[in-house]
Amino acid sequence: MILVLYKENLYYYSWNAIVAVSAIFVGLYIPLNLVIDLGEYPIFVILYSIASVIFIADVFVEIFRFKRHVRSNNPFEPKATAGKFLPWFAVDMVAALPFMIFFPGSPFQLLKLFKLIKVGRFMHQISQQEVRLSQFLTISFFFFWLVHIAHWISCGWLGISNLNADFDISTTYVRALYWTVTTLTTVGYGDILPQTNVQMIYAMFVQLIGFAAFGYLIGDVVTLLSKKDPSTRQYLRNIESLSGALQIRDINKDLQKRILNYYNYLRKEKVGYDESYFLDGLPTTLKTEAELELKKNFIVGIPLFQNASIDFISRVAIKLELVIITPGEILMRQDDTGNEMYFIISGMLDVVRNGNPIFLLKEGDFFGEMSLVANKPRTATVKARSFCNLYRLERKTFEQIVSDFPEIIEQIKEKAKSRGMPPD
Amino acid sequence: MILVLYKENLYYYSWNAIVAVSAIFVGLYIPLNLVIDLGEYPIFVILYSIASVIFIADVFVEIFRFKRHVRSNNPFEPKATAGKFLPWFAVDMVAALPFMIFFPGSPFQLLKLFKLIKVGRFMHQISQQEVRLSQFLTISFFFFWLVHIAHWISCGWLGISNLNADFDISTTYVRALYWTVTTLTTVGYGDILPQTNVQMIYAMFVQLIGFAAFGYLIGDVVTLLSKKDPSTRQYLRNIESLSGALQIRDINKDLQKRILNYYNYLRKEKVGYDESYFLDGLPTTLKTEAELELKKNFIVGIPLFQNASIDFISRVAIKLELVIITPGEILMRQDDTGNEMYFIISGMLDVVRNGNPIFLLKEGDFFGEMSLVANKPRTATVKARSFCNLYRLERKTFEQIVSDFPEIIEQIKEKAKSRGMPPD
Amino acid sequence: MILVLYKENLYYYSWNAIVAVSAIFVGLYIPLNLVIDLGEYPIFVILYSIASVIFIADVFVEIFRFKRHVRSNNPFEPKATAGKFLPWFAVDMVAALPFMIFFPGSPFQLLKLFKLIKVGRFMHQISQQEVRLSQFLTISFFFFWLVHIAHWISCGWLGISNLNADFDISTTYVRALYWTVTTLTTVGYGDILPQTNVQMIYAMFVQLIGFAAFGYLIGDVVTLLSKKDPSTRQYLRNIESLSGALQIRDINKDLQKRILNYYNYLRKEKVGYDESYFLDGLPTTLKTEAELELKKNFIVGIPLFQNASIDFISRVAIKLELVIITPGEILMRQDDTGNEMYFIISGMLDVVRNGNPIFLLKEGDFFGEMSLVANKPRTATVKARSFCNLYRLERKTFEQIVSDFPEIIEQIKEKAKSRGMPPD
Amino acid sequence: MILVLYKENLYYYSWNAIVAVSAIFVGLYIPLNLVIDLGEYPIFVILYSIASVIFIADVFVEIFRFKRHVRSNNPFEPKATAGKFLPWFAVDMVAALPFMIFFPGSPFQLLKLFKLIKVGRFMHQISQQEVRLSQFLTISFFFFWLVHIAHWISCGWLGISNLNADFDISTTYVRALYWTVTTLTTVGYGDILPQTNVQMIYAMFVQLIGFAAFGYLIGDVVTLLSKKDPSTRQYLRNIESLSGALQIRDINKDLQKRILNYYNYLRKEKVGYDESYFLDGLPTTLKTEAELELKKNFIVGIPLFQNASIDFISRVAIKLELVIITPGEILMRQDDTGNEMYFIISGMLDVVRNGNPIFLLKEGDFFGEMSLVANKPRTATVKARSFCNLYRLERKTFEQIVSDFPEIIEQIKEKAKSRGMPPD
Repeated sequence: MILVLYKENLYYYSWNAIVAVSAIFVGLYIPLNLVIDLGEYPIFVILYSIASVIFIADVFVEIFRFKRHVRSNNPFEPKATAGKFLPWFAVDMVAALPFMIFFPGSPFQLLKLFKLIKVGRFMHQISQQEVRLSQFLTISFFFFWLVHIAHWISCGWLGISNLNADFDISTTYVRALYWTVTTLTTVGYGDILPQTNVQMIYAMFVQLIGFAAFGYLIGDVVTLLSKKDPSTRQYLRNIESLSGALQIRDINKDLQKRILNYYNYLRKEKVGYDESYFLDGLPTTLKTEAELELKKNFIVGIPLFQNASIDFISRVAIKLELVIITPGEILMRQDDTGNEMYFIISGMLDVVRNGNPIFLLKEGDFFGEMSLVANKPRTATVKARSFCNLYRLERKTFEQIVSDFPEIIEQIKEKAKSRGMPPD
Repeated sequence: MILVLYKENLYYYSWNAIVAVSAIFVGLYIPLNLVIDLGEYPIFVILYSIASVIFIADVFVEIFRFKRHVRSNNPFEPKATAGKFLPWFAVDMVAALPFMIFFPGSPFQLLKLFKLIKVGRFMHQISQQEVRLSQFLTISFFFFWLVHIAHWISCGWLGISNLNADFDISTTYVRALYWTVTTLTTVGYGDILPQTNVQMIYAMFVQLIGFAAFGYLIGDVVTLLSKKDPSTRQYLRNIESLSGALQIRDINKDLQKRILNYYNYLRKEKVGYDESYFLDGLPTTLKTEAELELKKNFIVGIPLFQNASIDFISRVAIKLELVIITPGEILMRQDDTGNEMYFIISGMLDVVRNGNPIFLLKEGDFFGEMSLVANKPRTATVKARSFCNLYRLERKTFEQIVSDFPEIIEQIKEKAKSRGMPPD
Repeated sequence: MILVLYKENLYYYSWNAIVAVSAIFVGLYIPLNLVIDLGEYPIFVILYSIASVIFIADVFVEIFRFKRHVRSNNPFEPKATAGKFLPWFAVDMVAALPFMIFFPGSPFQLLKLFKLIKVGRFMHQISQQEVRLSQFLTISFFFFWLVHIAHWISCGWLGISNLNADFDISTTYVRALYWTVTTLTTVGYGDILPQTNVQMIYAMFVQLIGFAAFGYLIGDVVTLLSKKDPSTRQYLRNIESLSGALQIRDINKDLQKRILNYYNYLRKEKVGYDESYFLDGLPTTLKTEAELELKKNFIVGIPLFQNASIDFISRVAIKLELVIITPGEILMRQDDTGNEMYFIISGMLDVVRNGNPIFLLKEGDFFGEMSLVANKPRTATVKARSFCNLYRLERKTFEQIVSDFPEIIEQIKEKAKSRGMPPD
Repeated sequence: MILVLYKENLYYYSWNAIVAVSAIFVGLYIPLNLVIDLGEYPIFVILYSIASVIFIADVFVEIFRFKRHVRSNNPFEPKATAGKFLPWFAVDMVAALPFMIFFPGSPFQLLKLFKLIKVGRFMHQISQQEVRLSQFLTISFFFFWLVHIAHWISCGWLGISNLNADFDISTTYVRALYWTVTTLTTVGYGDILPQTNVQMIYAMFVQLIGFAAFGYLIGDVVTLLSKKDPSTRQYLRNIESLSGALQIRDINKDLQKRILNYYNYLRKEKVGYDESYFLDGLPTTLKTEAELELKKNFIVGIPLFQNASIDFISRVAIKLELVIITPGEILMRQDDTGNEMYFIISGMLDVVRNGNPIFLLKEGDFFGEMSLVANKPRTATVKARSFCNLYRLERKTFEQIVSDFPEIIEQIKEKAKSRGMPPD
């Protein structure tokens, strides 16, 4: 609720990004500075000062935001709003304290790392709003924390080791990080070893906790990476089920190829995926809108509907049912009684009367409407020439909708005449 | 059955906790004392003596308990009771034997470790009774055993090694534990190495058994940790299904946001979770009670029911069906025929007559009852202003219940009048 | 089919066990003898000679078996029989060749290891016939092969290493096995290292193949070990579903305890498990028999059926439906119309007429039969005093069966009289 | 679509195989040559020259293919065709550039590795067309890439190491590969160690990325390897469900054996597998054809159908339902009214009239047709002597089909007479 009010704002995102970068720098710099003297790199001190100023500024930004939010007056949960702001405000205050001035070189500075909680919240907000990127974002955020944890463990290792004066600062750090990664991944070369009891206990701690945590996180990321998009997943399931049938019974090569072509068609057109699970989870109004949204691209392409009212399109769209047919399939036979009409989304079909092809139906055409209107038998056979995506409209639905929109009847008759078919 | 009779007792838990702490101390001390001379820490001998006394006392406590239990005379399974007590009694007796006096320094003392079985049973009892904490308890108990196993393997390692006189006792122990953890986690630095054949075989044993056991246990704990609470699980499934749909078809940003808001609402309110699996597993009486219990918090908040009898509330509660609607959704339309009434658990709805908003419905209100009583068309349209949780009561159920409780009819009419709606 | 004819034979199993032990010895001895001179242990040469003689004898045993089998003349698949014997006969022949005499010390002796295939077949047969032990057997067989593979890799390692004269034979072997296990479990201490190119390539091979194979096998065994028996599995699912409900809604402690008691009862009595999956997978005749078998223990305990014909018991058994009720539950109410009777498998129920308890029903009793016979309302209320397992018999089924077995009617009337209930 | 036109061609596959081999050689040779001077092996330079020529030739082959494809004029997606060819053409062009002449020894040569993308596409095509081999192919391709990745990491390691002049080229390479595999499998002996900062960072990179990637790939391959064929999977499920039932209730040994025999029969005959999932995923026309194909082998063996028209066989085949019965099962009883006839696919059944066996039915026979034609009670009892696979034809279906093919009636009557059963 709160978010919707002003968070779209580009300023908001930019400021948060600046704060996040500062927090990350501080999160890496402070622990390292406590264990190694980084005095020879004055740039770090300057960056740290800038970050500290940004943290102080952020306190005022948050106060401004809170006031604006109270003014815009959320009527539903006024108390909850204050309650939500308060803990974050406390975090901001602690992180803004000028430890550098009052406690230089003291471990109290680590309190500034609280600001990283806010980075976590910011990352959570982004991943919630960009559902489409959620997989990519989860992996990025995972590597973000992985780097931090490895860095912190390395700093801890340096803190309990006697630094070797032979190594310069960067070598010292790389060696600590190398020990950390070698231990966490359970490779354990054994070239850098704990010597004292404290170091041994620390090493055990890194082995155990790191082992469990890395196992968990990597397992999670692997699960995420192995998630295919739904149509590919459906395709793989199809292939597996065909492969299973082949191991038990024989199917000739030609039929195999046609089945494979069908599966490939479904995957390429992304139509084999069952959206019903997603739609059924939504309440009525959202379901209707989502269904319209999903079918809109197809419906817009049907010439018959180009001048129709939005209300009519909604009514039809919800009732249309997607049908996929394979080359050679016969959709309706001459003289049978018909109970549905079809709209062609893609593909080509032959209209055959008394054995003679008389017409080729293409994308945007519709057919079968005569039998529905006049309750007569089909005047021709319709056979697929290629793979076709069709929308089926049942007679009952058709009659209901047409009775509400009588002008559509005229359009259908005109269209039917224009392709040389008698309207009755 | 047995447990229910006297185990609620705080004394019982306290005594068991004392016994458990003693058993843990003994489980760690005895094996270590066998391989290292801990004589320089006299405190351990004192603690060991106290623990031994507690074990002897526990035998008498158990006898007392058994007698009391027999007296309270469980009529259903008298033989089973004795059969259940006996093996535990044997364990208690063995652990209470004063090995320290008769076999000082002998491995027979390890028989005292049988007492840990009782600790295991005690932990099992606790985790069975505190279902809500079961996840936390399982992990605690896992770490409990992990520490013990690592300790025992370390003691074994010390037992087959020549102790280096250069190291003091604590360093010697830390080095053994460090070797154990390094080997069990498969890090294998290689700084502490087996030299003799016996040591090599022991190392292989630790590698193999530890590898399998740790893999199993850690896999188990990770599975446990990754179990989210049911509403979060449902939320993640919802997000995944939306993300799947987005990868295949386009849904505009606004609709996406509304769907996300809906999912967030379900998660925050913890209402999206399907309790039917839990309820369906129960027999009739328990199912009714559980359903009442789950709905009670909501029902108590409905003013109409504040003076109603418990019998009436039960009858209604079982029949109420939870309905969640999104902002803007129209729940009933003026002049339609209604078949249900609604109780508002949370949220706000506008009552609109002839296009004019005439009333705002809030938490605790109910509406739609008139059409049910009088079998007339709806007198107004009702539209959600925010997300709403409602309970729906179907006409048929309504008529049945009201016929049994005629006094409710009057309350409904009064309430309806008080908000300016004609009662018929 | 073939197996059924003579394999029950104890001689068959004993001989196979002797052959298996010989094959295992040979499988361990030959590779080791090729890389280390075991000459100083003459016992091995003697054992090897015995094993060789057993292999030769086994060829004749197989010929005898085949002849006997052909005589007993399996009418369904005569060709298949010969086809099945032939490859095993070839294996036996190769393994029986006296390599020791003609090619002492040559790698050709390894052909004798083919006999292990027969051990594998024998193990497969056992695990197929002892379904109840299948889990235990799978794990035993897994460790069997694990030990062999580790042994063979160790022999390979010795084969490409320069043996250190400082070590005696057993130390040399333990060191090789230690290297193998350390490498396969990815611990990799690094104290024993490959030096030559060949050794390095061998180490890589052991690392890669061993890594994949061990991962696969251990994963399999862990899966197997984590499989609980069905009633425990059901119990854990129940607990999880209760825990899920508790995290979302509140349920008072007393109701929680009663639900837990119910779950514990199901687990203890092993009745909560849904056998329908197992039964539905069987064809009609087997299904009937299995159902009878599963219910037999209960039915035998019902006094009414003690003199009944097997035919009658079968007819009833298939139709009986298990019902579990909790303490305090009311099963039937006075003056209601009844449609079923019940048989008590375990537990106690009170019969209450006009508010007064008049009778206590126990294991083996039945009730509700009067209303069925006379089509009158229930003459009393029946309420559970404890957890009860009952079998329900529906009126329709009851009438059908009783019409075929008129003598049962008399028994029911007598029994009913004997407990002081008027028969109508 | 495109593929179908000319890819069946053996020339196409052969040429692609040659290109693939060249690309693999180049993919291994170029990176190695950049880090080690392979000048002493002139054979490599010759092979590299040949591969380069093949790459140039492949550009012309692709141009020829594209022209031919445009000529054969795919009417459905002309633009898509060009769009598909273009990126691959670019890849071919880059890989064909003669780097060896213009930039000898420069890293630009690595651009030739783009050709491996084409190998990947070729492998993908093969695995798509050989569904039956998909499992084997996936594993082969996995090992293909695994070898390449390990090789490239080894080359990278050599590139940042100071080569030790003591080792010859092959030893140098084996040591690098050995370090790579030891690190990737997390064994980490620690005999070859990173010294410089760059080497340490590279080692961390290999540890981390390799750890994750290998974990993912090996997990994938293990999943693939553990996939059993559907009938074995069904068998294992059956055994598990029997084992579950045995742990809870007792089933006598004889019944156990009969149930096991039934499961073994299903597995051997591969009939227990449920094909409906596969068939239901297909559109109507493909489903009909697949069903015919799967049943064809059985139907062809039925003598009655040997002279029947294909149209008739199709009609019957779709309606036939597979039934499996166990030895001793009674399929129909004398004097009962019959509603179906059966065709015997395999197995033997006894026909018994008035208690006397009068006939033995075998593979290819059919029975029960008389009751269907004449609507009379069964003239005999039919009992299975062995396991039987039967096709059942329901009366309603039978009547429909026979009315369309009157000549079949005569065949049935003749056949029935010839086995001594009166036709009415």
